[in-house]
Amino acid sequence: MTNLKNIELPGIKEIEKAYKHIQKYSHQTPLMTSQYFNYISGSNIVFKCENFQKGGAFKIRGALNAVFNNLSEHQKTGITTHSSGNHGQAIALAASMNDIKVNIVMPENAPKVKIEAVRSYNAEITFCKPTLKDREETMERLINLYGYKPIHSYNDIRVITGQASASLEMLDQLSYKPDYIVTPIGGGGLISGTCLTRNYVSPKTKVIAAEPLMANDAYLSFKKKEFVPSYSPNTIADGLKTSLGSITYKIVLEMVSDILLANEDSIINTMKLIWERMKIIVEPSSAVALAVILDNKKIFKNKTVAVILTGGNVDLNNLPWLNSKV
Amino acid sequence: MTNLKNIELPGIKEIEKAYKHIQKYSHQTPLMTSQYFNYISGSNIVFKCENFQKGGAFKIRGALNAVFNNLSEHQKTGITTHSSGNHGQAIALAASMNDIKVNIVMPENAPKVKIEAVRSYNAEITFCKPTLKDREETMERLINLYGYKPIHSYNDIRVITGQASASLEMLDQLSYKPDYIVTPIGGGGLISGTCLTRNYVSPKTKVIAAEPLMANDAYLSFKKKEFVPSYSPNTIADGLKTSLGSITYKIVLEMVSDILLANEDSIINTMKLIWERMKIIVEPSSAVALAVILDNKKIFKNKTVAVILTGGNVDLNNLPWLNSKV
Repeated sequence: MTNLKNIELPGIKEIEKAYKHIQKYSHQTPLMTSQYFNYISGSNIVFKCENFQKGGAFKIRGALNAVFNNLSEHQKTGITTHSSGNHGQAIALAASMNDIKVNIVMPENAPKVKIEAVRSYNAEITFCKPTLKDREETMERLINLYGYKPIHSYNDIRVITGQASASLEMLDQLSYKPDYIVTPIGGGGLISGTCLTRNYVSPKTKVIAAEPLMANDAYLSFKKKEFVPSYSPNTIADGLKTSLGSITYKIVLEMVSDILLANEDSIINTMKLIWERMKIIVEPSSAVALAVILDNKKIFKNKTVAVILTGGNVDLNNLPWLNSKV
Repeated sequence: MTNLKNIELPGIKEIEKAYKHIQKYSHQTPLMTSQYFNYISGSNIVFKCENFQKGGAFKIRGALNAVFNNLSEHQKTGITTHSSGNHGQAIALAASMNDIKVNIVMPENAPKVKIEAVRSYNAEITFCKPTLKDREETMERLINLYGYKPIHSYNDIRVITGQASASLEMLDQLSYKPDYIVTPIGGGGLISGTCLTRNYVSPKTKVIAAEPLMANDAYLSFKKKEFVPSYSPNTIADGLKTSLGSITYKIVLEMVSDILLANEDSIINTMKLIWERMKIIVEPSSAVALAVILDNKKIFKNKTVAVILTGGNVDLNNLPWLNSKV
């Protein structure tokens, strides 16, 4: 354990221990490279494909670690969280793997594909209004009524420690230490875990966060050095709409090198390019990391860059480059 | 070399030699598995992901081997072929890698994404009417006018030998000999190569061909034991519209265990399921192989099945499950 402004942070031992647990229920995701993206960016990019992870996103890592940390208690009480997407799915999956009762609070406008995925893991769902206030109140009600234990999607050291295993695994797979790691930033769970791993395993690597311009609360917080919440942002990158939390805010301000922004066109074009050129499905939030690289080529020119492709849970009937609904 | 009804077939040495050449310009494609597809099929399926191959399809293998076989001559004369899609792209790419002038005959209704890909390799394109007759006549004209050497997309031993490297590589990656290998069948180049490799490397493995019901000429040829050509078939699996050739017809009749058919709904649903569950992009032709497995579960129950996912070149603006055009 180390300490940052009164927060007990996990040491490398805790992250390695989390990773060992997580490996039992998930699988190592592959690295991919693309000559095309190296060519157009002028840099040397490797992609960590968490879209191939169980549940279709890196989120299972944090969920599994949180569940493990209090397993016998969770099996007695059941667990809950509020989530519009991948975290809810991950908690539902981690619970189903460990015989834990689970109730996920989801906003009524959550993507249909994510609602169905949560259902497919036999989780109960409680729908609420699509505001942070109603999500939190609904979850509190469940906790008070039934005694479920909450697992927050990012502002929870157990979750951050689990997410840290993505970059631990990636750095272990790589034969070199990259100049940069770029990940999307939403609530800040993944990037916080990435920074911690980086500190221990590859301290010279700079960690850059990528955020949608239309949901630039982390950017503003980082630049102003004061917490700026997100107010119902409107971005195609639905996984990145949340505000930083009290823990992730402190880690991001202390350890991230910079936050770069991508506009909506850039996110959508990059997402489509990844599909076309790499033949893999990534969700809009995943494309933000590559989008900021392609929009800021000077920074990354001739550098080695590791990009975490965070997830691939997309509604195939509703693609952002098509004006169609089925 | 071995002999089949007056056709000189390559031996394992020739296939291995082709593979060595091909490896220099392409890359080993990964194997993938999916718990979901194992679960719903009741079999143990491994996917050979040729959608990740250079040029987005297995076709580069045959193209490279054909180009290598007469390299210095090709560099003098230039080469040509007619193709609506992946073979043309592969020949263009193989030519660009080896400094060979190339002119691809393409039907004017070829998918836009494939025309653009051919162009991106600096190949000349000659458009023709979308009939086999006009394709062949246009190519003949180019040969007579400019002396280009033709490389047929499947009825060419050099091409078949190159395609044979896909299953050679796959069997080398696998730690066991599968009960079945399933590949799509169009002109029969890939399945012929697969049969040859199987004969030498894993003779107990059965090779099954998968064909669209709406383009069932190979099925009819196989069942009647007489050549039945394809007449402008209408299937979403645009890579599988062609007839067998004089060489591939003989190999298929002699060496394939069975040909199974998939209807259009099954192809489209399977393609979408692969995208959703495996997070990879495959084209409709690739989905046919898994579609026949899911439609004939009894045959494959409790068996090990290797499926070659042949390509991932899809027009993302025109997906078959959406009634939309951009």
